[in-house]
Amino acid sequence: MEQQNILIIGAGLCGSLLALRLGQRGYNVTVYEMRPDLRKTDISAGRSINLAFSDRGNKAIKLVGIEDKVKELCIPMNGRMLHDKEGNTFLSNYSGREYEYINSISRGGLNALLLDEAEKHENVAIHFNKKCLSVDFEKTTALFQDYHTKEEFVEDADCIIATDGAGSALRQSYFLEKKFLFSFSQQWLTHGYKELSILPNDDGSYKTYKNALHIWPRGDFMVIALPNLDGSFTVTLFLSYDEGDYNFNNLTTSEIVTEFFEKEFPDALTLMPNLVEDFFENPTAPLGTVKCSPWHYKGNTLLMGDSAHAIVPFYGQGMNASFEDVVVFDEVLGQHEGDWGKVFSEYNKIRKKDTDAIADLAIDNFHEMKDHVANPIFQEKRKIEMALEKEFPEDYSSKYSLVTFNEHIGYREAMIRGRAQDKAILNMLSDGVISTEDDINDILDKVKTETEAILEDDRIAGL
Amino acid sequence: MEQQNILIIGAGLCGSLLALRLGQRGYNVTVYEMRPDLRKTDISAGRSINLAFSDRGNKAIKLVGIEDKVKELCIPMNGRMLHDKEGNTFLSNYSGREYEYINSISRGGLNALLLDEAEKHENVAIHFNKKCLSVDFEKTTALFQDYHTKEEFVEDADCIIATDGAGSALRQSYFLEKKFLFSFSQQWLTHGYKELSILPNDDGSYKTYKNALHIWPRGDFMVIALPNLDGSFTVTLFLSYDEGDYNFNNLTTSEIVTEFFEKEFPDALTLMPNLVEDFFENPTAPLGTVKCSPWHYKGNTLLMGDSAHAIVPFYGQGMNASFEDVVVFDEVLGQHEGDWGKVFSEYNKIRKKDTDAIADLAIDNFHEMKDHVANPIFQEKRKIEMALEKEFPEDYSSKYSLVTFNEHIGYREAMIRGRAQDKAILNMLSDGVISTEDDINDILDKVKTETEAILEDDRIAGL
Repeated sequence: MEQQNILIIGAGLCGSLLALRLGQRGYNVTVYEMRPDLRKTDISAGRSINLAFSDRGNKAIKLVGIEDKVKELCIPMNGRMLHDKEGNTFLSNYSGREYEYINSISRGGLNALLLDEAEKHENVAIHFNKKCLSVDFEKTTALFQDYHTKEEFVEDADCIIATDGAGSALRQSYFLEKKFLFSFSQQWLTHGYKELSILPNDDGSYKTYKNALHIWPRGDFMVIALPNLDGSFTVTLFLSYDEGDYNFNNLTTSEIVTEFFEKEFPDALTLMPNLVEDFFENPTAPLGTVKCSPWHYKGNTLLMGDSAHAIVPFYGQGMNASFEDVVVFDEVLGQHEGDWGKVFSEYNKIRKKDTDAIADLAIDNFHEMKDHVANPIFQEKRKIEMALEKEFPEDYSSKYSLVTFNEHIGYREAMIRGRAQDKAILNMLSDGVISTEDDINDILDKVKTETEAILEDDRIAGL
Repeated sequence: MEQQNILIIGAGLCGSLLALRLGQRGYNVTVYEMRPDLRKTDISAGRSINLAFSDRGNKAIKLVGIEDKVKELCIPMNGRMLHDKEGNTFLSNYSGREYEYINSISRGGLNALLLDEAEKHENVAIHFNKKCLSVDFEKTTALFQDYHTKEEFVEDADCIIATDGAGSALRQSYFLEKKFLFSFSQQWLTHGYKELSILPNDDGSYKTYKNALHIWPRGDFMVIALPNLDGSFTVTLFLSYDEGDYNFNNLTTSEIVTEFFEKEFPDALTLMPNLVEDFFENPTAPLGTVKCSPWHYKGNTLLMGDSAHAIVPFYGQGMNASFEDVVVFDEVLGQHEGDWGKVFSEYNKIRKKDTDAIADLAIDNFHEMKDHVANPIFQEKRKIEMALEKEFPEDYSSKYSLVTFNEHIGYREAMIRGRAQDKAILNMLSDGVISTEDDINDILDKVKTETEAILEDDRIAGL
């Protein structure tokens, strides 16, 4: 077979990983990225600085053989450290199994590593400062503009894969051209987010507990913080644009921002003398979910990563889902290599149900994080699930564990089983059928039986 | 209060009803419609010729006081007439209450009546052949183009209400301008549709039973037929574009179309000597659902009817939902007259959950109509529900009745209760807890108890 030319639009996390993998497979890969090379310029502004990295993402990292290098960039987070209004903290582990945890990782550091690894392959070339304006998916060509010279040029390939994020140029071409029936949705939350920071102590040490994802849940809004390798934490405020006593539209002065944090997050405020400065320097950004279908046009073009399925950040699965895309794609490519039409349609068919599921799960978790984690019945459920996971590590996984640590099953299966389990436990707690004092073997039996009954009832009802 | 100028874009069913109602309320109403005046030209091509008209739609017709005139256009349909492959028929009533039925009505006839009624008001002016190109929602102006002269002109108003259907120009302006966070989704079914016809007998009589909605359910596809006043039926084939042995992409010759109908719809074929001609003359059209949010921009502009919520036709609620929009809007207008910002935001808030629900219900019914109506357990459920409605007319309504005949509750409430009832009955039938032979009082008690339990379980689980 003649060596195929693949054009990748976007050298972010998904695009650079895909370039690396296709480079390893021997394809001629050309990548165009609209931003400057992040290894040479600081371009963090407006994008999340650190991310949650977990087992599904690591599956892809193992595939390309750089697990050890990635590990050096990771800070393990064993659980959620909840902060109440009085400054009391409570650590809630992510799993009852000690070896299951997630990681905080620097977006820039990981992206740089993937670019370096991809460029080690002679057959991979990455060009920066070239913005994709549109894609002609009938002709398999893409129109780019050079950031510096403003010159426009057309590139042609055997196939084009767009990993150009939530604002994808290829997806826009699919939508605007109206040449086929393209289902599309963009859904915005009522809340936006703003990044803030907890700086390190003067000696470079962490100002609060390092190995956790910190959460200040307040019902209608919340603050979270993830550790960075330099001793700082990246802090994010999630808040409504226009509802409630305090919102992004009315937090317009230093006084009112300080008052808000004094009242709601006093312990966080003491860690952030730089709060007001950060608040007014950093942008407020919206939180959106994008779904679409189909992802491909014949064997010519394909959407992958956020361009196909942008999700809200509350399950810590955005990057992991995009990395898992590359694993699934690689498997399908192995089965149908040589027939791009078949590869793209099979990949779309297998993968879409799972990315739809993680999009919905991420919105569920928005409500869970800001609200449920501080709700008594949800806390009892969590306590029971931790005990089940600890006592029966082979036999029980919570919804969170199914989604995060069970990378051998898809997101959709994790969602269906996880939601049924949640429903079973919450209802049995509410009805007094189980309690946190019961024998744990007894609880496991009841949860399993009730979960199966719920799944069966839904199946009969055609749900 | 000074007399306000309202600009309505689109003089279809929703726009002409709204113009009539606002005319009755004394507003200066100007309507621009892109098509020619349907009272003077035949413009039926490509649009559904007849529609299902039921209680929610009639609520609006009563509001504007033309119930008697509309009644003359109606053909009652008491139930579904199911046709199997052998040509056997089975009538399944829509309700166990004899006074509950839906109607077949001519789109053109009803639209013409509404235009006539609206134009009786001196303060209402309707202009045809003026296409809206875009709306400047900051300035409350709309750009139009005259179909004949191609001249463009701008119209200005105190507020603009777009009732310009699924392809709305105002909605497109909201989407493309990106001036606020606009959530939007368009979802296409895998199936398209094509209109066919059963012509009257030579003496003008109906070739098959007049007072039913005929269905030929075949699992993956179906044909339906609704009666017209002239003795004909409008027939619609719903079929996949590209899946199954027969689909729109491969039905390309007279022979294969005839073969398909001989095999799957032999009794329908005998009623349609004109099948092949209709098939190749009439377009194949897609089936889409549109949802969006917000519907309004400040007090300047508002989407209403299909422009805000286009739905698939399987619940027979498209027109009824748009008419109900006008009733809800009229109520809100009564409460907050003089403050368009308040009227639009309140209307949006109250109404959206219900139009989201009917959109989802309509997709459920696609599967029910083509598949479930021929499925034994669904038939048993239907039998039980007919008996319950007949025996307890005040105490029980099926999901279909809640949606169609209970216009005092919203679609969302109908959906939640109706789905829970369906789940209760299907599961109890499957588990042998109830059977069609049981005492009807007993069945009612069990269905009510189980429905409440399902609703309570969902509530506890936060669903």
